[in-house]
Amino acid sequence: MKELEERIRQDGTVKPGNVLKVDAFLNHQCDVSLFDQMGAAWAEHFAGKRITKILTIEASGIGIACMAARHFGNVPVVFAKKAQSINLDGDQYTTTVYSFTKQKEFPVIVSKKYLEAGDRVLLIDDFLANGKALRGLIALCEAAGASVEGIGIAVEKGFQGGGDKLREEGYDVDSLAIVESMDPETGRIEFR
Amino acid sequence: MKELEERIRQDGTVKPGNVLKVDAFLNHQCDVSLFDQMGAAWAEHFAGKRITKILTIEASGIGIACMAARHFGNVPVVFAKKAQSINLDGDQYTTTVYSFTKQKEFPVIVSKKYLEAGDRVLLIDDFLANGKALRGLIALCEAAGASVEGIGIAVEKGFQGGGDKLREEGYDVDSLAIVESMDPETGRIEFR
Repeated sequence: MKELEERIRQDGTVKPGNVLKVDAFLNHQCDVSLFDQMGAAWAEHFAGKRITKILTIEASGIGIACMAARHFGNVPVVFAKKAQSINLDGDQYTTTVYSFTKQKEFPVIVSKKYLEAGDRVLLIDDFLANGKALRGLIALCEAAGASVEGIGIAVEKGFQGGGDKLREEGYDVDSLAIVESMDPETGRIEFR
Repeated sequence: MKELEERIRQDGTVKPGNVLKVDAFLNHQCDVSLFDQMGAAWAEHFAGKRITKILTIEASGIGIACMAARHFGNVPVVFAKKAQSINLDGDQYTTTVYSFTKQKEFPVIVSKKYLEAGDRVLLIDDFLANGKALRGLIALCEAAGASVEGIGIAVEKGFQGGGDKLREEGYDVDSLAIVESMDPETGRIEFR
């Protein structure tokens, strides 16, 4: 998506250690107009998939997923939670995800009430690098007997390979910007 | 807001320990149509306040805040983060908040780049009980020199007093449903 690539070039920052900071518009400050355009792009790509639910993971995916849901007939958005809280029943699916940004493993849970067999799920997240978070969401869908109809990603770090691996396995991954290379010295970003 | 009260009566669950579970539509599964109505209600209440930014706290506030921003001319949404992550610079405002649901203290941070003197801020959150999370957001605004023009809350637990204390201090708190009492035995919920 041209608008997203341009925005990354304009306001993104490349940091050492394969970190691309897009917190000016994507995952700390949020540009809801841009989110709306992203939702429209996914709706076009995943037209005909009869999505019944959007599943994302807290925290950065939530705003994007909610804005996108408007383009899918206001289907419910469910966000998987990253830690046990007293506000969740024991009746939940659980998996474990390694976070690149937080550099640790954490449990990810979703209530069995909100992810069910028969759900046709669109996974949405802000970033796709090695794909660990998405693998967690896929595992939750598998546990529930829900089908993963598509994966909508804002920014894929193509050079980390997680997206291509998922495509090889048959997942329909629509990343709106795929970074092929980035250089912390010059700040230069190349898109696929 | 009538629609929210009805929804709480219909899909909310009262649990022992002053816990009101609304994860069917508010903070685990999200009903974006309802969020949209909530945003419209706040836009009406806070008309004329010339809001330039919406500030919320991860995770449950984000979806509500993003949907609400559409009703405030697509102002930027900033969500305060609950822990240090390598994706944030050192250049940030920090405070500490006690979480009722997680029963522990945690640091809350916002980048200095995204909260500034002159910002006219609307705080948004899903719940208001004793007001600890809001106090944290207010402290971040004070540190930045930004003005808190209003506070939009989905569900206030009126009997815990946090909202009335803020109102006494002069804050314009618009809670769309104020629970005056709730009974875990009968499940009965009374609104103010």
